[in-house]
Amino acid sequence: MLRNLINRTPKLNNGDPEQKRQEIREYFHSTFDLYEKLFEVLTSDEAYYKKATPLRHPLIFYLGHTATFFINKLLLAGLVKDRVNPEFESIFAVGVDEMSWDDLSETRYEWPTVHQVMTYRNAIRQTVDTVIQTTPLTLPINWENPWWPIIMGIEHERIHLETSSVLIRQHALQFVEPHSLWEACQKSGTAPENNLVHIPEGIVHLDNQKSDAFYGWDNEYGLHTAEIPDFQVSRYLVSNQEFLDFVEAKGYTNDAFWEEEGLSWKNYTHAAHPTFWIAYGHEWQLRLMTEVVAMPWDWPVEVNYHEAKAFCNWKKQQTGHPVRLPTEDEWYRLYDISGLNAIPADQKATANIHLDRYASSCPITEFSHGELYDVVGNVWQWTETPIYPFEGFEVHPLYDDFTTPTFDGRHNIMKGGSWISCGNESQYSARYAFRRHFFQHAGFRYVVSETPATVNTSHYETDKLLSEYAEFHYGDEYFGIQNFSEALAHLAIQAMGNKPARTALDLGCAAGRATFELAKHFDQVTGIDFSARFIGMGVKLAEQGVLRYTLADEGELVSYKERKLVDLGLNEVRNKVTFFQGDACNLKPQFTGYDLILAANLIDRLYSPSKFLSAVHERLNMGGILLLTSPYTWLEEHTKKEQWIGGFKKDGENFSTLDGLKAILGKHFHLVQGPLAVPFVIRETKRKFQHTLSEATIWERIA
Amino acid sequence: MLRNLINRTPKLNNGDPEQKRQEIREYFHSTFDLYEKLFEVLTSDEAYYKKATPLRHPLIFYLGHTATFFINKLLLAGLVKDRVNPEFESIFAVGVDEMSWDDLSETRYEWPTVHQVMTYRNAIRQTVDTVIQTTPLTLPINWENPWWPIIMGIEHERIHLETSSVLIRQHALQFVEPHSLWEACQKSGTAPENNLVHIPEGIVHLDNQKSDAFYGWDNEYGLHTAEIPDFQVSRYLVSNQEFLDFVEAKGYTNDAFWEEEGLSWKNYTHAAHPTFWIAYGHEWQLRLMTEVVAMPWDWPVEVNYHEAKAFCNWKKQQTGHPVRLPTEDEWYRLYDISGLNAIPADQKATANIHLDRYASSCPITEFSHGELYDVVGNVWQWTETPIYPFEGFEVHPLYDDFTTPTFDGRHNIMKGGSWISCGNESQYSARYAFRRHFFQHAGFRYVVSETPATVNTSHYETDKLLSEYAEFHYGDEYFGIQNFSEALAHLAIQAMGNKPARTALDLGCAAGRATFELAKHFDQVTGIDFSARFIGMGVKLAEQGVLRYTLADEGELVSYKERKLVDLGLNEVRNKVTFFQGDACNLKPQFTGYDLILAANLIDRLYSPSKFLSAVHERLNMGGILLLTSPYTWLEEHTKKEQWIGGFKKDGENFSTLDGLKAILGKHFHLVQGPLAVPFVIRETKRKFQHTLSEATIWERIA
Repeated sequence: MLRNLINRTPKLNNGDPEQKRQEIREYFHSTFDLYEKLFEVLTSDEAYYKKATPLRHPLIFYLGHTATFFINKLLLAGLVKDRVNPEFESIFAVGVDEMSWDDLSETRYEWPTVHQVMTYRNAIRQTVDTVIQTTPLTLPINWENPWWPIIMGIEHERIHLETSSVLIRQHALQFVEPHSLWEACQKSGTAPENNLVHIPEGIVHLDNQKSDAFYGWDNEYGLHTAEIPDFQVSRYLVSNQEFLDFVEAKGYTNDAFWEEEGLSWKNYTHAAHPTFWIAYGHEWQLRLMTEVVAMPWDWPVEVNYHEAKAFCNWKKQQTGHPVRLPTEDEWYRLYDISGLNAIPADQKATANIHLDRYASSCPITEFSHGELYDVVGNVWQWTETPIYPFEGFEVHPLYDDFTTPTFDGRHNIMKGGSWISCGNESQYSARYAFRRHFFQHAGFRYVVSETPATVNTSHYETDKLLSEYAEFHYGDEYFGIQNFSEALAHLAIQAMGNKPARTALDLGCAAGRATFELAKHFDQVTGIDFSARFIGMGVKLAEQGVLRYTLADEGELVSYKERKLVDLGLNEVRNKVTFFQGDACNLKPQFTGYDLILAANLIDRLYSPSKFLSAVHERLNMGGILLLTSPYTWLEEHTKKEQWIGGFKKDGENFSTLDGLKAILGKHFHLVQGPLAVPFVIRETKRKFQHTLSEATIWERIA
Repeated sequence: MLRNLINRTPKLNNGDPEQKRQEIREYFHSTFDLYEKLFEVLTSDEAYYKKATPLRHPLIFYLGHTATFFINKLLLAGLVKDRVNPEFESIFAVGVDEMSWDDLSETRYEWPTVHQVMTYRNAIRQTVDTVIQTTPLTLPINWENPWWPIIMGIEHERIHLETSSVLIRQHALQFVEPHSLWEACQKSGTAPENNLVHIPEGIVHLDNQKSDAFYGWDNEYGLHTAEIPDFQVSRYLVSNQEFLDFVEAKGYTNDAFWEEEGLSWKNYTHAAHPTFWIAYGHEWQLRLMTEVVAMPWDWPVEVNYHEAKAFCNWKKQQTGHPVRLPTEDEWYRLYDISGLNAIPADQKATANIHLDRYASSCPITEFSHGELYDVVGNVWQWTETPIYPFEGFEVHPLYDDFTTPTFDGRHNIMKGGSWISCGNESQYSARYAFRRHFFQHAGFRYVVSETPATVNTSHYETDKLLSEYAEFHYGDEYFGIQNFSEALAHLAIQAMGNKPARTALDLGCAAGRATFELAKHFDQVTGIDFSARFIGMGVKLAEQGVLRYTLADEGELVSYKERKLVDLGLNEVRNKVTFFQGDACNLKPQFTGYDLILAANLIDRLYSPSKFLSAVHERLNMGGILLLTSPYTWLEEHTKKEQWIGGFKKDGENFSTLDGLKAILGKHFHLVQGPLAVPFVIRETKRKFQHTLSEATIWERIA
C-alpha cells in the first residue's frame, strides 16, 4: 500500500506565490520520485534494454525521456539556456509512440547505462529544482505564464507513469518483481450480473477556460455543448466474467462481430482473448503489473477499442438491442448525474484512482457512484468518440504535437482514468485518445441507445493545395488585400442593384467562401466545383460550421488553424447554400434559372472555356448578371492552346482574353462594368505568397 | 519608262492640315495603284496561285495582304469599327514570311479568286479613303497620332511593292510578261576594274526622334554614336563581271570560303552561281523581273549575304588583305562623305532608286556619289551587321512584331535601297534586315579594314525564368515594394559602417543587380552564380550597359523591355564588377579575403547549405560582414531533406532555419542584426506575381 496520498495537481489560479512555489516544487519532486520508483519493479539492468513489446523502445528510453522533456520545454520557454547533455537529449527526445516495422533498426540505439541515465536524471532534477526556486512567480499560472512549461513537464511525467506501467505489465515476467509500493488489490470474487441503468436526456456543457484552476492539455479547452437523448448504460464496467461469455461464444473467431479496422488488427495479431489473459491449463490467469494471478472474475476486463466494440456487436446480436460503447458526451452525462466531485486534495478518492487504493484494478462492485459503479477509476473506459477539437481549440505553442496528430479520426477518447491515473489524468476534463488497437489499463461499459454515436470532425486539412485554398477563402488577409471572395460577392451584389435575387450560382466555387457570402443577398446559392475535395470544405462548413487546416510555415513545420462561420458572420446563411460537384463545361440541366452567376478564376482552368462561355446565358435569367474574374493565366496543363480564348496573336494582331470574352459573350450579354483589377493573395508558406490581379468583368444578359 | 515620279513619303511635322490630308490621300491612292499595277505583269490567273518559291505563299496572298493590313491597323487604332470581310482578313493577315516545311499544308488555303480579291481591295480602298477624308487631322503626325497607322499602312504596302517584285522575279517565266510601266534598263557593257577608296576615320551619329519629319519604323529611332576607324571600300558595287571571277575560281565548290551558316545553305540548295544567273549553253543570262536578258556584266551582282561573304573570303585569300562586307556604321560613313542628300521631292534622284530610273538594275558606273558609285540605289548592299536596337528603342504598340522577331542575331541589315525602294525604304535611316540566305534586289560592295566588324547585342532574353529575373533585378517595382537587390545592398552598406570596403562577394548573384549596387560602396565586387545563363545577364550589362528581355503578359503575348545601367545610376561602377560561374558549396580558392559577403536567397537553393555555411568564414576577413537572406522555401528538388538546416522537428521540437543558422554560424559569427523581413516581388505575368518575405540576418565574423 502506498504510504501517502500522491500529490494532487496544484491549483494555479490563486494562492500565495511563495507557498505555490513550494507546492509546485513538491509536486515536481514527488512525481520525479514516483516515476523512478516505478522502475524499481524491474529485476535487472537487462530489463531496461529488452523490449516489452517489439514496436516500442525499451524502458531505458522512458526513464530518460521524461527528464529530457523538461529540459526541452524549459529551453523553448527560455527558462534555461543550455542543454544538460545534448547527446542524451537527442536520444531521449522522441520515440514515445508505437513505431512502424521499418523504424526498428536496433543498431540505431546505443543506449546509455542505467547508472548514466540516473545520473542524468539527477542533473535534470537539480536544474528543474533551481528553475523552480529562482524563477519569479506571479499568479495565476496560465498558458502564457513562464511556469506553465514546468507544470507541463510534471504532468507529462505523470502520463508516462501510467504508460510505463502498462509497458512494464507487458514485459516478460522474469524482468519484474513485486514491490511494496506497488501492491495489487487482493480482493476478487464472482462478478455480479450486469444490468442497464436509464440515463435521462440532458445537456452536456463544457467550457474550459485557460484561466481555470488546473493545468490542462490544449485539447481540453474550448466550448462544447450537446443535447444528449436518454440512453441506458451498464451499471458496472464489463468484468472479466461478463467478457468470458463473449470469448466462449467464439467472439474472437467470428469475424462478423468485428468492425473492419478491428478485423485487420485481429488478423494481424491472431488475438484470441484479452491480451492480459493467460490460458493456464483449463484455467484463466491474469497478468498484472508485476505478477500473474488467478483470474479475478469481478475485476473489469482490459481490452482495446476493437475488442470492446466486438463485444458490443455480439451483445447486440444476442439481445436485439442497439448496444454500443458510450460516446464521450454520454460519459459526461454519467458523471454529471453520478454525484461525483473532483478528487479531494487531502483525502482518498472514492474510486480506484490516483494510486489512492491499489496498484491494480479491483472488483467492479467496490466503488459506487450514484446508481453506477466506477464512473471514474479502476480502468479507463473506451468511448465511440474519435478525439476532436472543441470550439476555440488552440494548439499550445510549446507542445504543438501533443494533440494535433491525434485529430485524424483514428484516435478514440478514453474517459474516467485508471487506478494509476494521477494529476491531470484523473480529472473530469481530461481527454486522452489512443489508437483503437492500443492497450492501456482500459476497459469499457456499454450503452443501449437508439441514437447512433455521432462523430465530430477532427480532421485538419493537410493537403497543401486544399489548405492553401482554405486560408485563401476563410483565413487571414495578407499585404492588406481584402478577402477576394468577399470582394467579389460585394461587387456582384452591388451590380445586382434592385434586380430579383432569388438564386445565385457560384461556379468554380472551390472552398466556397463566395457561395456563403452571396447567400447574404440571395435566397439560395449553389456552389459548384469540378473538385469534390474542394467542395468538401464548403460542405463541412455548412454542416459543422468549422473548418480546420494546417498551414505550411517553413520546410515541414506547420501551424494549425481553425475558422468558423460564426466568426465570419456567415452562420445565419448556412442553410441557404448547397454544394455540388460539377463540370462548368458540361453542367447538368437542373442548374439553371439563376439571377446571378459568379465564375471566379474559372475560365483559365477550364478545358474548353468557349464551350462554357457560349452556353452560360442559358443558365441565367434574362437581365441576370454574370460576373467573371480571371488573371488569364493560360497554361497548357489546364487548357490546350487551341482552346485558349485569348492571349495570342490572331490574324497577326494581339488578341487578349478580354477580346475573346467580348467576341463570345457579345451575342447575349452587354458589358456593364469592368474590366477591373481585383487583387488576391494565396499564402504558400509563412513567407511566400502568390499575389495576383484578377480581371473582373460584369455582364448583363440581354438576349 | 514610268510617266511620273512616284510620290515621296510625306513630311509629317508641319504644313497645312487640309493640304496634308490631300497629300496623304494621294500618297495612299498612288501606292495602292502602283501595287496593283505591279501585278499586271502576271500573265494569267494561274500566275497568282502557282508559287514562285516553295516556301512562300502564292502572289494572290500578297495582293490581299496589303489591303488587310490597313483594316487591321485601323481597327486597332479605333479608326474603323468593323471588318470589311472577316474571312478574307483572316486569310490575308499572316504568312508574309518564309515558312518551314511542315507549315506547307496546301489544303489549308482556299484562296479567293483574283476578281474577289480585287473587289475586296476596292472596298478597302474606299474604307481607307473615307478614313483619310473624315478623320480629324492635327500636325505633327507622330507615334501617338491616330494618322500614324494610316501612314504605316501605306509604307507597309511600299515594302511589299519591293518584296512582291522579288517574288515575281522568282516566278516561272511563263507567268510574267513585259509591261510598259516596268521597263528594265537597256544599257549594259563591260564592267570597270573595281578599286579601293580610302575612307578616313570619323564619327557616325544617329539620333532619330519620333518627332522627325518622316514616317519611320520603330527600329530606326533612338540614339547611336560610333567612332569608325579609317577603312578602304570598293569604289563600285561588285558587278556580275567581278563576281564571275569568284564563280570561275570554283568559289561555289570550295567550302573553305563559306562561313558555317552559309555552307549549310549552300549544301541545302546546291547553289553553284547567283540565283538570278542562268547558264545558257556557254553563255550566262540574267533573269530580270519579267524577262531574261544576256548577262549585263556591268550591272551589280545580286546575291544573298552568304554568297557575298564567301566572295569576300575568297578575295581575302587572293589579295592577302582583310576583305569583308561593310558594317552598317561604315555604310553611314560612305553616305556621310559622299555628298548625298535626301531624295528630292520634285525631281529625280541622282541614283537608280524610288523607280525614278528603271524597273531593274543598271550599270554600276551610271551614278557616282562623290568618289564612289551607287552609295544608294541600284541594289541593296548587304552589311556585316545583324540588326539591333539603338539606345532608347521602343516597340510600336500597333506593330509589335515588325522588328522584334529580327533581333535574333540572324537578320542582317541591308542599306542603300534598290531601284524599286520607295518611300521610307529609300531613306538614309531605313534599316531593313533579312535572314542572311534571303534574296532581295541586293548585292554588295566590300571593304578592306583591319578592324573586325563589331556585332551589337540584339538579343531579347525570352527564357521565362531569365526574363523574370531580369525584371526582378532591373525592372519595375510592383505593389510599392522597393527593388530587392537595392534594398539588400543598402542594408549591407549600412551594416559595414566604417569598416574597410575593398572587396565584396555577391554569392548567388543571379542577374547581378546587387553586385552592381554594392560596387557603389566597394572597390571591387565579385558576382558568382551557379548558373552561367544568369550571370550572362550581368556580364552583358557590364559590357554593353543594356539588357533586353521580353515579359510574359497574358498567354503567349509578351511585351519588350530594355534596361540600361545609365538609367539605374550604375554606369560608373561597370568596371568594378566581375562575374564568375561558381558553386557556393565548392568555391574556388581564389574567392577569399572579402570584406562583405552577400548571399541573397541562396541557402535554400543549395544542395548542401551546411557545407557552404560552415566554411563561409574562410572567405571573409576578420570583422567582415555576412548578409544572408532567404524565405527558407525548402524544396526537395533543390535540397534533399537530410540537407535542410531547419524547418523540421528536431528532437521533438520545432527547429527553424534561423535555429540552424545560429547553430552552424555560431562558432565564427556574431549575429549583429536581424532577423528582418525584406519583401520582394517577382513578376510572372501581367497579373501574376510572387510576393515573398525574405528573412535577412547580418553576421559579423568574430573568429
